[in-house]
Amino acid sequence: TEDKHSSVLKAALMELPAADVANLLESMPPEQRHDLWELIPPEHEGEILTWLHDEARASIINDMDEKELVAAADSMEVSDLAFVLEELPRDQTDLILESLDMDRRLRLEKVLSYEDGTVGRLMTTDVMAVRPDVTVAVVLRWLRRHETLPPHTDALMVTSSEGGFMGKVAMNTLLLSSPERMISEVMSGDTEVVMAQASEQEVTALFNRRDLISVAVVDEQHHLIGRITLDDIVDAIRSDAEEKVMKSAGLDQEEDLFSPVIPSAKRRGVWLGINLITVFAAAWVIGQFEEALGQIVALAVLMPVVASMGGIAGSQTLTLAIRGLALNQIASSNTRWLLMKELAVGVLNGTVWAAVVAVVAWFWFNDIGLSAVIAAALIFNLLAAAVSGILVPLTLKKLGIDPALSGAVILTTVTDIIGFLSFLGLATLFLL
Amino acid sequence: TEDKHSSVLKAALMELPAADVANLLESMPPEQRHDLWELIPPEHEGEILTWLHDEARASIINDMDEKELVAAADSMEVSDLAFVLEELPRDQTDLILESLDMDRRLRLEKVLSYEDGTVGRLMTTDVMAVRPDVTVAVVLRWLRRHETLPPHTDALMVTSSEGGFMGKVAMNTLLLSSPERMISEVMSGDTEVVMAQASEQEVTALFNRRDLISVAVVDEQHHLIGRITLDDIVDAIRSDAEEKVMKSAGLDQEEDLFSPVIPSAKRRGVWLGINLITVFAAAWVIGQFEEALGQIVALAVLMPVVASMGGIAGSQTLTLAIRGLALNQIASSNTRWLLMKELAVGVLNGTVWAAVVAVVAWFWFNDIGLSAVIAAALIFNLLAAAVSGILVPLTLKKLGIDPALSGAVILTTVTDIIGFLSFLGLATLFLL
Repeated sequence: TEDKHSSVLKAALMELPAADVANLLESMPPEQRHDLWELIPPEHEGEILTWLHDEARASIINDMDEKELVAAADSMEVSDLAFVLEELPRDQTDLILESLDMDRRLRLEKVLSYEDGTVGRLMTTDVMAVRPDVTVAVVLRWLRRHETLPPHTDALMVTSSEGGFMGKVAMNTLLLSSPERMISEVMSGDTEVVMAQASEQEVTALFNRRDLISVAVVDEQHHLIGRITLDDIVDAIRSDAEEKVMKSAGLDQEEDLFSPVIPSAKRRGVWLGINLITVFAAAWVIGQFEEALGQIVALAVLMPVVASMGGIAGSQTLTLAIRGLALNQIASSNTRWLLMKELAVGVLNGTVWAAVVAVVAWFWFNDIGLSAVIAAALIFNLLAAAVSGILVPLTLKKLGIDPALSGAVILTTVTDIIGFLSFLGLATLFLL
Repeated sequence: TEDKHSSVLKAALMELPAADVANLLESMPPEQRHDLWELIPPEHEGEILTWLHDEARASIINDMDEKELVAAADSMEVSDLAFVLEELPRDQTDLILESLDMDRRLRLEKVLSYEDGTVGRLMTTDVMAVRPDVTVAVVLRWLRRHETLPPHTDALMVTSSEGGFMGKVAMNTLLLSSPERMISEVMSGDTEVVMAQASEQEVTALFNRRDLISVAVVDEQHHLIGRITLDDIVDAIRSDAEEKVMKSAGLDQEEDLFSPVIPSAKRRGVWLGINLITVFAAAWVIGQFEEALGQIVALAVLMPVVASMGGIAGSQTLTLAIRGLALNQIASSNTRWLLMKELAVGVLNGTVWAAVVAVVAWFWFNDIGLSAVIAAALIFNLLAAAVSGILVPLTLKKLGIDPALSGAVILTTVTDIIGFLSFLGLATLFLL
């Protein structure tokens, strides 16, 4: 009955879309993942591999023999295959390249010649083109000779006899035009193109602003070499959002929920190490006030309050500023205005919460001087938080560092240090 | 020359896509924003309004008079208009509703009858349908009578004479099929539909898994009432990603970079207040160890190290777990495995960084007992971080609370408290 079970399971698996099978594989610890993979028919393996995150995919490819790998590669689209190949060791890459027929191999090498993160990598090379000097009727007859069209074909590209891009004609335009008209009359020549060297971010922004379904990709000679469709962009947007969240916690975007312990610990350890440096810096600041701490224990009890409130207020400003930078809404012309606004918000919230903290501290320690000192330190730290919430991301961007990655670590280091410094410093001045 | 300038600016503005003008408006402080809006021709106002974030849009609508508002509404798509109307005060809504022609008003009321965040709100009601019992030639002739088709029409819907949804026929299929065939022969009946009551998340997941461009929307009687296209989904994905980032900092997703100080301060103040409660809880824990802190000042200096390292390690586990939950990759069957893995990562990283911290503490304070205590507390806190990184989001999800919103606050409260408790507790036991 083991066998019977597995054949039922096999049948069920084939009913599921590839994306779901990939997700199922990623939900399983290594041994179960391996067992499930064994049940998947070879002709489905290629598509499922393209849906997996890098690390999970590597764990599966590791278990595949050469023949299986070649068969899977055979059923993959060229752009997906390029994506997978990049993660494989050299000998497996060569093995797969040799197994491809000439046409696919040439197209793959073309795609691989563009850098990761560029349009050339993202594009589909499977694109239909027509000449401008034929009639709609001719094109319609030519189309009818096809069994199917490449997926997501919403337009035919129009090219010169040398392959130069001239414009495109929407499939719906072909449907609405009278058959005797020329392609050159019905095509739209005033259409967006992207260069294969352009970045994923540029093309994503273009799709976002112009409400496009597909766009032609050209090389430096303005020759048509492929197209980008909205579904590629959706993948790019999704993966970009995921990357931001994962990287801000010092994780690799491709991290597998069930990755082995030692590589996981290593990758995460780096981030812990960076944090250790920043927290020792804060500890060093505290260490400068040993005398005050030795005399007034309440300072040790209350000091996290000042640091933490600054961290929260600062990260609110930081989050707004990072979004503003990503949308190109912050420039030198409005930075001053923004800084003033954030300082005003800091004064308001600083005053309100400083009052609350002062009252609580007074009930707790019955020391009016201590209440005054913590209130002043809190207001001061919220103002510092407002300034660094704006200036930290602006500076990082100028240095070419992604503020979404390291902004929060730097900001909380600043608010921790200023929080401890102002609270313990004021206490030393006025309470000792 | 003032006038000349503004006419040049006006011409330039009309060249920009609506999305860019909206972004430009959002990059400006209130007075400049108001001045720029004055320059925009009324017929462009509707589309630009739909691209603005809620708060920025409200700030602009506030300045518009009735006539302007009605004119702008007139040029908007029904689904966009529904989106805008929801944010307006009752009297402006009524004014706009009364100004619409009967057909648009009925379609708008239909859309508004569905709840925010459902497919009914997201859908376009502008959809073309044909009967199954006509030939492709008839449909082609009917299509040619149109000047244009609704944007992003990749398929015609097929409905019964009662409006029941039967399937759809791709525009490309019409192009490839011989004209004498019946629609019923070339249509695909086995096609996805979504209910108007379904949530945005459900339909986004469907598009993601099936690589769709558009899908039919039906009501409870399986009657066709609209369609959702991939570009609506892209907006939903983008806005969802933005929402997560903003909410995790206690910000409103629609927050305007240049919103007035007082409402901004109020909204952000709530999050500061919540944080104040958690940090006072941690302070209370520290307060229980006044004796130890009074005797050994080094404890106050080093205690942030233990708490902070736990917070970082915990947020790594939390981030992974939140992604796993969002992708439905975590279930009761693998929680135990995951917990064991995270504990093992915690043991490894805990040991490594505890050794580093112990050595630094020894050089600093020359007290072997203190080094032993901080190392033990650090390992203990990283294990607690691993457990809470898994259990906090699982518990929040069971309670129906979005772990992406409040997970981090709860987690760092746990790691702060356990960090202070274990370090100061062990110190009290062994060092006093």
